[in-house]
Amino acid sequence: MSNQRHTVDRARVLGRLDEISRIGALENGGVCRLALAPEETQARARLIGWAQDLGCVVFADAIGNLFLRFGDAGSKEPPVLVGSHLDTQPVGGNFDGVLGVIAALECVEILAAQSDRAFGPVEIAIWCNEEGARFSPTTMGAAVHAGHFPLAAALATTDAGGQSVTASLQQAMTSLCAAGISPAPRDLAANYKAYVELHIEQGPVLEKEGCAIGIVTDIQGLVQYKVEVLGTAGHAGAVPMEGREDALTRARALLADIDKTLAAFEGLRFTVGRLDVAPGSINTIPARAEFTLDVRHPEASILARAAEQIELLCAGAQLTRLIHQTPVPFDKRVATAIESATRRLGLSSRRIVSGATHDAAHVAALCPAGMIFVPCRGGISHNENEYCAPEHVIQGTQVLADTVMALAERRVQ
Amino acid sequence: MSNQRHTVDRARVLGRLDEISRIGALENGGVCRLALAPEETQARARLIGWAQDLGCVVFADAIGNLFLRFGDAGSKEPPVLVGSHLDTQPVGGNFDGVLGVIAALECVEILAAQSDRAFGPVEIAIWCNEEGARFSPTTMGAAVHAGHFPLAAALATTDAGGQSVTASLQQAMTSLCAAGISPAPRDLAANYKAYVELHIEQGPVLEKEGCAIGIVTDIQGLVQYKVEVLGTAGHAGAVPMEGREDALTRARALLADIDKTLAAFEGLRFTVGRLDVAPGSINTIPARAEFTLDVRHPEASILARAAEQIELLCAGAQLTRLIHQTPVPFDKRVATAIESATRRLGLSSRRIVSGATHDAAHVAALCPAGMIFVPCRGGISHNENEYCAPEHVIQGTQVLADTVMALAERRVQ
Repeated sequence: MSNQRHTVDRARVLGRLDEISRIGALENGGVCRLALAPEETQARARLIGWAQDLGCVVFADAIGNLFLRFGDAGSKEPPVLVGSHLDTQPVGGNFDGVLGVIAALECVEILAAQSDRAFGPVEIAIWCNEEGARFSPTTMGAAVHAGHFPLAAALATTDAGGQSVTASLQQAMTSLCAAGISPAPRDLAANYKAYVELHIEQGPVLEKEGCAIGIVTDIQGLVQYKVEVLGTAGHAGAVPMEGREDALTRARALLADIDKTLAAFEGLRFTVGRLDVAPGSINTIPARAEFTLDVRHPEASILARAAEQIELLCAGAQLTRLIHQTPVPFDKRVATAIESATRRLGLSSRRIVSGATHDAAHVAALCPAGMIFVPCRGGISHNENEYCAPEHVIQGTQVLADTVMALAERRVQ
Repeated sequence: MSNQRHTVDRARVLGRLDEISRIGALENGGVCRLALAPEETQARARLIGWAQDLGCVVFADAIGNLFLRFGDAGSKEPPVLVGSHLDTQPVGGNFDGVLGVIAALECVEILAAQSDRAFGPVEIAIWCNEEGARFSPTTMGAAVHAGHFPLAAALATTDAGGQSVTASLQQAMTSLCAAGISPAPRDLAANYKAYVELHIEQGPVLEKEGCAIGIVTDIQGLVQYKVEVLGTAGHAGAVPMEGREDALTRARALLADIDKTLAAFEGLRFTVGRLDVAPGSINTIPARAEFTLDVRHPEASILARAAEQIELLCAGAQLTRLIHQTPVPFDKRVATAIESATRRLGLSSRRIVSGATHDAAHVAALCPAGMIFVPCRGGISHNENEYCAPEHVIQGTQVLADTVMALAERRVQ
């Protein structure tokens, strides 16, 4: 067994990342590849071309997820799935999603170069509309594939210009066809041996701790609310302080109570991302204040208790629950496989909870799943300043490749 | 001396208010008579017609304030000035301003009916652009007349459509001319014996205390700020609570400090009327929060100390002072004259500080000045729901008339 054959090709990985970054490139270094738009389709075609050169066969399901299968295409043996997404935010970066797809392709490159070990099938997954920027909701493709979101509802979704997912999918598939690519059909909720995804952290933890690899144990649960507090408008000069019904003062008091209550929940993350005041005039006492709450925790029971406390505190306000996603714990064996690979490579690592949601949150319902995080500068993503250093790209890809090899290897019985 | 001759004519006053309310009437009971717009000019022409029927002579100064003089027009004797304004907010009410003008006309009606007492000249003042809704700033006409705002700057001011005060004034004066009205010129900063203005309170104090008349002792001083607090955006799920630089959290902490500090200043009124958060996304930690502060107090030294404290507390933020208006104390003799009239009529009254600013704040620099407040329902103004009950209209007008008679009477030497 030659060690060199297991090693990620640095120039190839960085070169491919660079090549994809030019498709939909923006002026200031960012990229715009909206889901199912021509730029994303072009990037998908490039990936398929590289994978076909390695002997991969292309499948697509009804919501536009692509599966590039390496190994016997006719066998019923469940593949190890490895991938991410190629769509971006309107002003996105060059690592969110695409890193996981290029790294998955590199896994297949390494497998294709092996001759002295036996592997089961491996598939590169390219999930459709992870960002949710063009079509809502986020992680649409993976959610539909896993049965978490109805296919018909997803297909009927339209973008801001009124174009449906159905029409956009037809356009995308026609373009692939014109490029000589005709995917075979893949059922939803197919059977997989395991799923692994490499992604930038999108948070500051790994960078701050000087840690090369994050072994993701869970995806946090999420509850989001809209809270509306009412008051009575009045002249800022003419109405005395006593007896004012200032909606913003009330909202601030309510937020202070929520702050105090939630501070008791260790590991909870909560954010007030929006706060609107009406009528919003410098000399008018606010009649209405509306704010949002975004509350996250990796443990379902703790998140539920926090939500309960918030709902109690907001009894006097208009509370609307927008989202309640339960936490997703990843498979312990997959995490152990990632950890072993990391340790063998001598890389620093830590277990980490994903604050953001990912395609893997849905795939985890179909098979043992896990994720690998690498640091990104300043924790910044969804932004032209998103940056992942070449050494982190390569280290993450190597850990992914070693993990996939371990998961896909056919042990001698 | 017939008592009847001193008594306000209820039907005439209410009828005239109703007649003016139809000029610029809105669907839901409000009115739109923007400064120098055709509707305001039409209302001014109606007032002038009524005043001319009583023998009044019309003067106008360079900024479009009108003075309808009752008594010897040729004499140099300083008149008692009584009035208010006829312009409104875009969605204004039927009492703010117009009440003081119709009541001033009623004073002249009563004087004209007197034969057994001797009075010096009395002028009805109709101030230009009090609201500041079409042209900024508020109380423009009175401010220019008193020398508090430069004439040239006022004339050059444009409305949202780009039309200047100069052009609008010319149009308004041409319309008056077409109606047979040619005002004689009046110098700015003319000489007056006294000024009295009747106005709705625009606050809830009189209504709450069941008080018929407010004897205004001062107009509060006002300081307004814009405060900008910066932070760092980040993913609401991915960035841990420790080490967050949440601009809204910072702004809320700053506001809590300001609340605590200002609570020690008795009689201070402070309002946060605007609060904007950027980028304003439910799952993004705010990078920027901007709010306004409106701080008022009747005593200049206390207001200055409060402003100093705010500026100290905001040392870490971007603070912009937008306005600093010093408080205006009204003349004690005018207040005493109002109080005597109120007492003689057997009406309940209290001394009150005006929270809002008024034309009288400027005229007070030219002569002894004072104001009379009457209750308005719920303290609401600048709104279609603005309402002053007929008995309060009539009681206020009677107090104004008795006060003007007392101030204008020529005592036997």
